[in-house]
Amino acid sequence: MTAPLPPLPPTLAWRGGLDGCLELLDQTLLPHQQRVLVCRDVAAVADAITRLAVRGAPAIGVAAAFGLLLGVRNLAPVPQALRETAREVAARLAATRPTAVNLAWALDRCLAALQRENTLAALFAEAQAILAEDQTACRRMGEHGAGLIPDGGTVLTHCNTGRLATAGDGTALAVLFAAWAMGRRFTVLADETRPLLQGARLTALELHAAGIPVQVLCDGAAAGLIARGRVHAVLVGADRVAKNGDFANKVGTYGLALACAAHRVPFYAVAPASTFDPRVADGRGIPIEERSADEVLQLGGQRLAADGIGACNPAFDVTPAQLVTAFVTDRGLLRPPFGPAIKALLGPGR
Amino acid sequence: MTAPLPPLPPTLAWRGGLDGCLELLDQTLLPHQQRVLVCRDVAAVADAITRLAVRGAPAIGVAAAFGLLLGVRNLAPVPQALRETAREVAARLAATRPTAVNLAWALDRCLAALQRENTLAALFAEAQAILAEDQTACRRMGEHGAGLIPDGGTVLTHCNTGRLATAGDGTALAVLFAAWAMGRRFTVLADETRPLLQGARLTALELHAAGIPVQVLCDGAAAGLIARGRVHAVLVGADRVAKNGDFANKVGTYGLALACAAHRVPFYAVAPASTFDPRVADGRGIPIEERSADEVLQLGGQRLAADGIGACNPAFDVTPAQLVTAFVTDRGLLRPPFGPAIKALLGPGR
Repeated sequence: MTAPLPPLPPTLAWRGGLDGCLELLDQTLLPHQQRVLVCRDVAAVADAITRLAVRGAPAIGVAAAFGLLLGVRNLAPVPQALRETAREVAARLAATRPTAVNLAWALDRCLAALQRENTLAALFAEAQAILAEDQTACRRMGEHGAGLIPDGGTVLTHCNTGRLATAGDGTALAVLFAAWAMGRRFTVLADETRPLLQGARLTALELHAAGIPVQVLCDGAAAGLIARGRVHAVLVGADRVAKNGDFANKVGTYGLALACAAHRVPFYAVAPASTFDPRVADGRGIPIEERSADEVLQLGGQRLAADGIGACNPAFDVTPAQLVTAFVTDRGLLRPPFGPAIKALLGPGR
Repeated sequence: MTAPLPPLPPTLAWRGGLDGCLELLDQTLLPHQQRVLVCRDVAAVADAITRLAVRGAPAIGVAAAFGLLLGVRNLAPVPQALRETAREVAARLAATRPTAVNLAWALDRCLAALQRENTLAALFAEAQAILAEDQTACRRMGEHGAGLIPDGGTVLTHCNTGRLATAGDGTALAVLFAAWAMGRRFTVLADETRPLLQGARLTALELHAAGIPVQVLCDGAAAGLIARGRVHAVLVGADRVAKNGDFANKVGTYGLALACAAHRVPFYAVAPASTFDPRVADGRGIPIEERSADEVLQLGGQRLAADGIGACNPAFDVTPAQLVTAFVTDRGLLRPPFGPAIKALLGPGR
């Protein structure tokens, strides 16, 4: 029907050795333009995370790990200053986005590595390990979740949870890619996901490129389609899961969960273990990032509302655990009661 | 803070006598441009309704009544052909948009007037009566609903239900205008209302011009704000109310109703008696208009998704009666059980 899409560059990749650089595909320009950002210092990485050139909870964790390496490499004058500089750089990176816990999780891992061995090489190895483990986690989420996708059905998803959100195949989209690879056939409805349209711009692009049938819809249309029996499962990602199973995800997720509960449609959240936060008891403890009104009021340089009008722009919402059918993680499916399941996932003492 | 907005021309107005014309403010160009469409034939009116230059259930009813007059005036060669031409023209206008019942209701009224008196003057008088009655109905909805608005609270609304949706002050927005006029002070959250952004473009414009504080939000953000206790009442309009109280309204309404029910926030639908359809038993009987994928995929000449990707674009959804706290009508508040209340509203034999 249409020309095949050109393959996308990697979402993020480290080029070279310890003196190398981090390459990020600038997702703000997709689907119309492919531009790779070459980051050689922490400022470039922090800026990319802040303005969503790189986004998706797992991907910003990986980006932050390499951002920390860049910052420490450039800013620590002597080996003795490594740890202190690392703490300062990590604090700067952690402040870029408050909701997704993968960011803090990756930085904590890197700082712990420096505690064990106070060298740039140790930091580099840890960042590389985080990237490699994310790729493995994506593959495993796909394997654990693929059987949930109804053959011949329609799956609805929100925001982007694919190759553009991780270092691997994605979270919720990894499940769809894996189900497709094992021969299941289905259609995807992709919420456009206002304000930044990650569904229309990114998810539709990834699925279409993979040959999976996809239609975009406005976020407000999902509940009515669910009520009319047009949706057989909803899969979303997560930015932070509390110990009781409440979780934050891209704004609009909670409304999907309510509609699924009202019409007994399975509602799955797909996330690696790194997205589960043992320090947060329930959803009330998850900070919700409020972003600029301009994201709502401007599109492609065009102002959507009259001058003088403001906007309210929470980037996330919280879905309570009781609306979740199951979590798909890299370590298997978690079913209710989530408290014990998450405790087991996180290991002893968490 | 900013320059006052210039006053808007009337949403719709008839200029002159029987040989006059219908003027419609082209709402597709708002808020950036004010252009008045001068309609001298039925084709111009049908086109304006189809492409949403005039929209809002009451307003398209009024526009259709004058459109019928224009069609019959221009197309009926002799008085004997009036009724047959009127039926043909009415069928053409009725087909422009299937969901809002006010369109068919206004056309039926005009055809009945022609049955009583087979003259253009009778048709003209009926169209003028429909317009005048809509203005009165708007005032009365405002009066009946104003007391529901919590002083010092925040009210959330969806799409546009104001002066731009009616010949008068609006439906849900008429309630807000009336509450403000009686001294209540509150803030409004206006869902942007994708795909055509009637909330961001029109509702925010009307409220801001009236001095009522308003912030725009993405449709998907409403449920999370309702969960966080940030919303004290939700008011929406309606395009068709079934005999049991199920009602169709702009897509996205149903999700708001689910969130209100989950958090015990009052959810009001505001509509004149002409929006209640005695021929439809429940929501399953309301046709849902599916509009062009381009409305979702294009904005301001810019394509939002990659080439080759389609969209699903239902323009309405259905909210079941059990989620409605009350209907605000021109004849008073209707509270559950809605079946008997609606039967009484519609009068004997309906």
